[in-house]
Amino acid sequence: MANYTIGVDLGGTNLRIAAVDEAGHLIEKLTLGTQVALGRDHVVNEMCGAIQQVAERHQGSSELRGIGIGVPGIIDMRNGMVRQSPNLPDWVDYPAQTEIEKRLGTRVFLENDANAAALGEKWLGAARDFDDMAMLTLGTGVGGGIVLGGRIWRGMTGMAGELGHMTVEPDGVRCGCGNTGCLEVYASATGVVRMAREAISGGAVALGRAASADAEFSAKAVYNLAIQGDEDARKIFRCVGRALGIALGSMVNALNLPMYVVGGGVSSAWEAFSPAIFEELRWRSMVYKATAPESLTDGPKTLITRALLGSDAGLYGAARLPMMQ
Amino acid sequence: MANYTIGVDLGGTNLRIAAVDEAGHLIEKLTLGTQVALGRDHVVNEMCGAIQQVAERHQGSSELRGIGIGVPGIIDMRNGMVRQSPNLPDWVDYPAQTEIEKRLGTRVFLENDANAAALGEKWLGAARDFDDMAMLTLGTGVGGGIVLGGRIWRGMTGMAGELGHMTVEPDGVRCGCGNTGCLEVYASATGVVRMAREAISGGAVALGRAASADAEFSAKAVYNLAIQGDEDARKIFRCVGRALGIALGSMVNALNLPMYVVGGGVSSAWEAFSPAIFEELRWRSMVYKATAPESLTDGPKTLITRALLGSDAGLYGAARLPMMQ
Repeated sequence: MANYTIGVDLGGTNLRIAAVDEAGHLIEKLTLGTQVALGRDHVVNEMCGAIQQVAERHQGSSELRGIGIGVPGIIDMRNGMVRQSPNLPDWVDYPAQTEIEKRLGTRVFLENDANAAALGEKWLGAARDFDDMAMLTLGTGVGGGIVLGGRIWRGMTGMAGELGHMTVEPDGVRCGCGNTGCLEVYASATGVVRMAREAISGGAVALGRAASADAEFSAKAVYNLAIQGDEDARKIFRCVGRALGIALGSMVNALNLPMYVVGGGVSSAWEAFSPAIFEELRWRSMVYKATAPESLTDGPKTLITRALLGSDAGLYGAARLPMMQ
Repeated sequence: MANYTIGVDLGGTNLRIAAVDEAGHLIEKLTLGTQVALGRDHVVNEMCGAIQQVAERHQGSSELRGIGIGVPGIIDMRNGMVRQSPNLPDWVDYPAQTEIEKRLGTRVFLENDANAAALGEKWLGAARDFDDMAMLTLGTGVGGGIVLGGRIWRGMTGMAGELGHMTVEPDGVRCGCGNTGCLEVYASATGVVRMAREAISGGAVALGRAASADAEFSAKAVYNLAIQGDEDARKIFRCVGRALGIALGSMVNALNLPMYVVGGGVSSAWEAFSPAIFEELRWRSMVYKATAPESLTDGPKTLITRALLGSDAGLYGAARLPMMQ
């Protein structure tokens, strides 16, 4: 009888559930809408109901070893609390682990969603050959996760890996966290759209036209212009790359890891922003210089690459959590 | 028969040697000048001679378990090579470990001097109650060391912990490493003197008078003026604190460690620069905010404090190296 686990990616829009076996094979995947407006208990009931259905379908044939849940926001690992979550506004100091364990009678492991994504890419994605890695997830915000010795580095209170809130421009744009110049305000989808609107105010014609044509003007629209060669759009992705290069340069100097993975929706624009990352790294990080893939010294190299699992990274990582205990 | 080790702190000016027992008690300490101008072989011979004398004095009464050497510069841990050292210009790709083992017939462990200092503070200093910590050493440059799970985090090639070369002002002052705006150019003794000279050019009277009176105008002189209330000097230490606060904010967000130690010569000016560190941290780091000693949430706190071992941190850390194997 094969063992399996269930991973949950609890986003502000979608609630995704996957049953995964210990070799990383997907057994079943399910996507529901997250009806945040109906309140926390409704979301938890929907989630537990869906998990139970999945579990019942596999009862007898294989054993459920636990449930891992990736949650956006600040998780207190010591007592399984969701402290606060930007996308789940009424999950404040909510003892999610106990509540869900009570309903399901199965071990539950909570994790920050970006940490879960890092663990997913480490297990089955771009970093599968590395025990030490870090991942930046460029979405609505910028999440981060650090894996050391094959395990998520959680730090003292489970808050480690907030790489999106490293300062890259000390007097820069105000961030939702209270700081100015966080990586997040330059390398998130929100940041790309903000920079596009600033460019439009400054007279960027093609961007202005795209924004008028599209009520939901998005980072994707800016990317489409960038690949068509629009200089204003290209400049925005150079800013994305510069901010990432500054943050990654400091990370490489501090941690000297073999692998850094860039994922999340904005990473689809890799071609547009990655040249600026490497340009920054080559002069900002002495450790990168000494270990860059193109360097002539022998020995292991520092790799910086796109994620491989797309939006499933967090789902696989969540499923991996119960297997790591 | 008690075991002991010998730690060596190989600086550009002083060569210091200490015999330390496994409980951290100092058995003997020796300071020689490092005669860099006479060349590498001379320095190595002097060092090995002094180590041998110490070892002979304790022969019979206790057993030498190994020698740890803290070296400024880039160490390749895999093969015990000193890649390059700013203070030891002719130590380029020098197989120091093998060379010294050959002469002494004892196991030798090389380590970057700032990593050794971090290990020393972890073992016997400010971080002795913590298994996870980071240390910044503010000297001529700014060194760094990260200890995770009680052991130095060396990274892929032993280059981890270059915290002095984190970018804190992306368009800031040029650093010797090739980057602009490294922590080192604002928080080192060299940085303090540079900022003082800039202030003098801008009309800072008291600093100007101090510089004219003293051919070796130093960070200490700037500190003396700061504690006398000179606003220009105080402003310089606020810059030191701001740069440290930016770097520490990113470190706290990324690593969520319980303890960060600030040491090195410039840390004597702690009273002058530390208020600016905490001011920056309180708004730049969401993780610090949630875990600051003054925060009302329960749970463990993030501590940031002065080093306790002064200039002996690296010496004790070096002596600790053979005990960790």
